[in-house]
Amino acid sequence: MTRIAICAPSTPFTREDAARVIALAAAEFPTLELVFHDQCFACDGHFAGPDALRLSTLLECADDPSFDAVWLARGGYGAVRIAGEAVARMGEAARGKTFLGYSDGGTLLGALYRAGIGAPVHGPMPSDIRRERGEAAVRRALTYLSGDNSGLEPGLDERPAAAFNLMTLAMLCGTDLMPDLSGHVVLVEEVSEYLYAVDRLFFHVTAHLSGIAGLRLGRVSDVPENDRVFGAEPEGIARYWCGRAGIPYLGAADIGHDAANKIVPFGIASRRNAS
Amino acid sequence: MTRIAICAPSTPFTREDAARVIALAAAEFPTLELVFHDQCFACDGHFAGPDALRLSTLLECADDPSFDAVWLARGGYGAVRIAGEAVARMGEAARGKTFLGYSDGGTLLGALYRAGIGAPVHGPMPSDIRRERGEAAVRRALTYLSGDNSGLEPGLDERPAAAFNLMTLAMLCGTDLMPDLSGHVVLVEEVSEYLYAVDRLFFHVTAHLSGIAGLRLGRVSDVPENDRVFGAEPEGIARYWCGRAGIPYLGAADIGHDAANKIVPFGIASRRNAS
Repeated sequence: MTRIAICAPSTPFTREDAARVIALAAAEFPTLELVFHDQCFACDGHFAGPDALRLSTLLECADDPSFDAVWLARGGYGAVRIAGEAVARMGEAARGKTFLGYSDGGTLLGALYRAGIGAPVHGPMPSDIRRERGEAAVRRALTYLSGDNSGLEPGLDERPAAAFNLMTLAMLCGTDLMPDLSGHVVLVEEVSEYLYAVDRLFFHVTAHLSGIAGLRLGRVSDVPENDRVFGAEPEGIARYWCGRAGIPYLGAADIGHDAANKIVPFGIASRRNAS
Repeated sequence: MTRIAICAPSTPFTREDAARVIALAAAEFPTLELVFHDQCFACDGHFAGPDALRLSTLLECADDPSFDAVWLARGGYGAVRIAGEAVARMGEAARGKTFLGYSDGGTLLGALYRAGIGAPVHGPMPSDIRRERGEAAVRRALTYLSGDNSGLEPGLDERPAAAFNLMTLAMLCGTDLMPDLSGHVVLVEEVSEYLYAVDRLFFHVTAHLSGIAGLRLGRVSDVPENDRVFGAEPEGIARYWCGRAGIPYLGAADIGHDAANKIVPFGIASRRNAS
């Protein structure tokens, strides 16, 4: 049996949607046991409970040796308020675990990767059950957690990789949570940002990513309509800023805020490299 | 006569609004001559003309010894694409000039300040004429440009200061355009961002501002309504992140994306310190 602890370092989930995820897992993944921590359903303003509760729950899940993985219930915003302390306080049991999530969860994945704790993995979350064809996303995550690599992002190769939401990565750059991505292929995706904001984020992020092996661009979706056309498409923006920064642009990546979002283990994908 | 060159490193202005600004200056500031460069009205997708045109125009204005100041027509987004090259290529005539603007223009102000070129000043732009009571904002800028310090932000003291839009500053952090703000009082303001995004920006910015004398918070305006209440007000957010980063929180600042936006010369306000 592979036991998976689910907690919410950012925003709250609902019991109804958790029940759907549990039902899907029970029907199709008999070797997995999902345990939604009650904290997933806590609510304190924007967050899934106060910082102290989100922190203690994340530590509880990471440090419990009876769990094999920690799955982040949902993104939104909030992990950055607790990620540094969480990583600093995690014990031995965390080192053998997979940590799976994306979007705002990338904050925690980045901090874990920097600290060399466990196996951070960018991939679907329980909250993806709400998307159209969201079962496929959840199924992809559960397939990975059951030891099957078929949901890996297809362009991953022998080079180490990392994947982030672009804004999340921008906010990590230069902070105590930012991992060293030298030599890595960095995959980024974005959602609900104006293209001028995407351009601005690329300025910032490429200024911080010198020394990476290259950048690949996932989907940039739900771009709000602006009062005028920006004048470049996301790929052109990525190529432009990579060119200015001397970063190889390596093409498209099959990640995004959608049900097709593929799995990107941090580090070398073919290894299941929890430390 | 004080001659003021107006150009648009970010987004385009209109001839109608330029005419209103010129009329106001002609009526009330007989010692000022405003010269709107035609590039202010150019349009290329999002921008006031292509990068090459915005760059060459900015250099033309900065390097023309017959001008005493360069006034940025409008913010929006775009200065970051040309600021580094502009600053690298500016000649002697730029060093004696005041450069006045805010919002996206803060990118250029920051780059100038880093390079020690001229006197960068955060304050109203011609585009503020469009605001309710916008004449007061334009008048404040023209008053400053005519040598009168009455529009200075009232809390400025003997310590060096700098003022930025929060997002603009966040995007500068850690890049080749970021000035050294050690020992400075840093004033920030924001507009049209969700409070969770403001919180996220404060995480990033405070991580990059260790060593500043303190932070003051201008107005955080036009906050979009989210699907739930964030749970903290802007001042609480600023206090929280300043506290975590060991940065003194020094209270409110009278700046913002509004007609009341006061003047903040970079450096020590009581000096007119163009180099």
